[in-house]
Amino acid sequence: MATPPRNLASRMQFLKASEIRELLKLTQRPEVISFAGGLPAPELFPAREMAEVTRRILETEGCKVLQYSTTEGDLSLRQHIAERMNHKQQTRVGAEQIMITSGSQQGLDLSGKIFLDPGDVVLCESPTYLGAINAFRAYGPRMVEVATDDEGMVPGSLEQALTREANVRFIYAIPDFQNPSGRTWTVARRKALLGLAARFSVPVIEDSPYAELRFEGEPLPALQALDEHELVVFLGTFSKTFCPGLRCAWLAAPPDLFSRYVMVKQGADLHTSTLVQRQVATYLDLYGLDDNIGRVIEVYRERRDLMMGILEAELPAEVTFTRPEGGLFLWVTFPPAVNSRELLQKCLEQDVAFVPGGAFFPDTGHDNTARLNFSCMPPERIEEGSRRFCAVVRAFLA
Amino acid sequence: MATPPRNLASRMQFLKASEIRELLKLTQRPEVISFAGGLPAPELFPAREMAEVTRRILETEGCKVLQYSTTEGDLSLRQHIAERMNHKQQTRVGAEQIMITSGSQQGLDLSGKIFLDPGDVVLCESPTYLGAINAFRAYGPRMVEVATDDEGMVPGSLEQALTREANVRFIYAIPDFQNPSGRTWTVARRKALLGLAARFSVPVIEDSPYAELRFEGEPLPALQALDEHELVVFLGTFSKTFCPGLRCAWLAAPPDLFSRYVMVKQGADLHTSTLVQRQVATYLDLYGLDDNIGRVIEVYRERRDLMMGILEAELPAEVTFTRPEGGLFLWVTFPPAVNSRELLQKCLEQDVAFVPGGAFFPDTGHDNTARLNFSCMPPERIEEGSRRFCAVVRAFLA
Repeated sequence: MATPPRNLASRMQFLKASEIRELLKLTQRPEVISFAGGLPAPELFPAREMAEVTRRILETEGCKVLQYSTTEGDLSLRQHIAERMNHKQQTRVGAEQIMITSGSQQGLDLSGKIFLDPGDVVLCESPTYLGAINAFRAYGPRMVEVATDDEGMVPGSLEQALTREANVRFIYAIPDFQNPSGRTWTVARRKALLGLAARFSVPVIEDSPYAELRFEGEPLPALQALDEHELVVFLGTFSKTFCPGLRCAWLAAPPDLFSRYVMVKQGADLHTSTLVQRQVATYLDLYGLDDNIGRVIEVYRERRDLMMGILEAELPAEVTFTRPEGGLFLWVTFPPAVNSRELLQKCLEQDVAFVPGGAFFPDTGHDNTARLNFSCMPPERIEEGSRRFCAVVRAFLA
Repeated sequence: MATPPRNLASRMQFLKASEIRELLKLTQRPEVISFAGGLPAPELFPAREMAEVTRRILETEGCKVLQYSTTEGDLSLRQHIAERMNHKQQTRVGAEQIMITSGSQQGLDLSGKIFLDPGDVVLCESPTYLGAINAFRAYGPRMVEVATDDEGMVPGSLEQALTREANVRFIYAIPDFQNPSGRTWTVARRKALLGLAARFSVPVIEDSPYAELRFEGEPLPALQALDEHELVVFLGTFSKTFCPGLRCAWLAAPPDLFSRYVMVKQGADLHTSTLVQRQVATYLDLYGLDDNIGRVIEVYRERRDLMMGILEAELPAEVTFTRPEGGLFLWVTFPPAVNSRELLQKCLEQDVAFVPGGAFFPDTGHDNTARLNFSCMPPERIEEGSRRFCAVVRAFLA
């Protein structure tokens, strides 16, 4: 039978399938060296330990870990998280402020749900995380880019935006090793953002999946650590430091917002998998996270160095790129006339892939940029892929 | 510091914490015999087999099952589900129509997101599932109750509602062993609903967590099995037939809606836990679901019989209740003057609990009703609790 005409919610006109995920489908031919995805290196996942952890949980805790549980999440996991945040991110949060989420993506979705009516404004970095754009768009806001340089959002531009826009509902920021740019905000810029947020009484959604993946330099305090006005909601995740396939993440929120997050999560999925939460908590009990993160940092640092070394040696001088101190990504800027979507076509002919940067700008434009991932490919493929990439760029510019 | 004033989305005024979940907190004193929850019997969860399944997956599939995966879900799990639906529910769906969700609650939330603008109308049974009310309310619809009797929605009332309301975006129905009433729709009523849905071009969200938990009588075709016009989205789950704590469920949707569900799920949580999906798929490979469901049915049937027997013998004649042929719940109706919230207070004094029925009616009212769960307590507590419940009711009515 013919499909009937559908009356869909008006939000559906703003939504489109993630360009990256669609692109990834095209780059999954095994011969393609893909710098397009954002995948952690799977060979570092502790599969053997996860088997031991699961055996132990099911033996000692039995059927309880297969039953429904609370929306807030497993208390022992929340305690682990609060302790780790306070130790590593310089925050002062209690376990009662931590809610477990089904990936940080859910933290983004719930934030949109709590704060956004159609036409409201979200201020974001330029560029910003594509998954956040998609999550927020379901609630109909205008995403307004704030000028961003290598130190973070430019305070003058943020102040202008806050003054100009009447209904800013939150500022969205990824201060450490940002996806897609790899940039990290300075402490001065963090403080400037919080000062403006306080002056305009605007909350901040701090998305922090990468902060613990620092290859060099000193850890910086999270925005939430510097917040004296209960303005910051912190989104953290085990996806980049442990295993993304578990879909185990969290948020840390001021008390009045915490209860709202619990309420909307209840409607969204009741709670995150009980077994997964117990697996992560028990892994932390038995092994901690430091050894695993140490291994990840060592491997990713080597891969970044390898990629950066080749880009430095082989890219023409008019092509610039960021030098991230951690995380999974670096960001390439070509001369203004270059369209990186066209460049991608040329790269795919040579079986190498990246993400054209335009996707990361809500206002469109910036088509002369590209995101390169260095976490997922083994060194020999990073080397080969980077050389191919540089060769295609050189030919494209010539 | 003082919490700043918050500008929240207007939807937040419609949302309140689930009454049942708040109530459950009060009834968790170990001495309370609670018929209030909706929990499956945990002693039936296959914990030992889950340990074996997990060991095997992590050994044979390694780190792949801890990595990100597709939004649609694990293909082998989707194939299992399609086959099972076609065999048990009389549908004709393909694996490509199945999307894995993080609990059926997520299927409800995504349905709200796809279909509902503020002020739109959802037609629902009277009473209906509280978790659906909470999920849909985040999108600002009017929930309009359609008169419902022991055979399902009354077609005349449904037709009136469809004629009267200009912007009905979908009909929400739980045709098998409904939560909260325990009622099952007849085939004639299923066909009547589909005829009206087709005439008015209105989609149907079929929520079917309990259909396979039939204690007696013949299985009936799902609404989706009878649908000739691509109107029905079917929500299924492993929570009641297997383990709720995994948060593994699915939806089966017509192709044009399927792509929309994938898009909104991508924004909501990227995908459901890869490991959990592989655990369920591998459990189905190794053990199938029939043995487990057989055990569940045997135990729940015994518990229902026990509870129904005592209610029949000891409740006054003016108190009526449903006689469900499956599922987890039965539904009690007291004389109109009874307020079951007050009755609950009296019951709690005797350490027995249920859910006052008013919570299940979006339009409020019906305070002379109650939902009793018979799946979760062991027989001796069902017996003792049912006797206490009847004694309190008799005293209350006297």
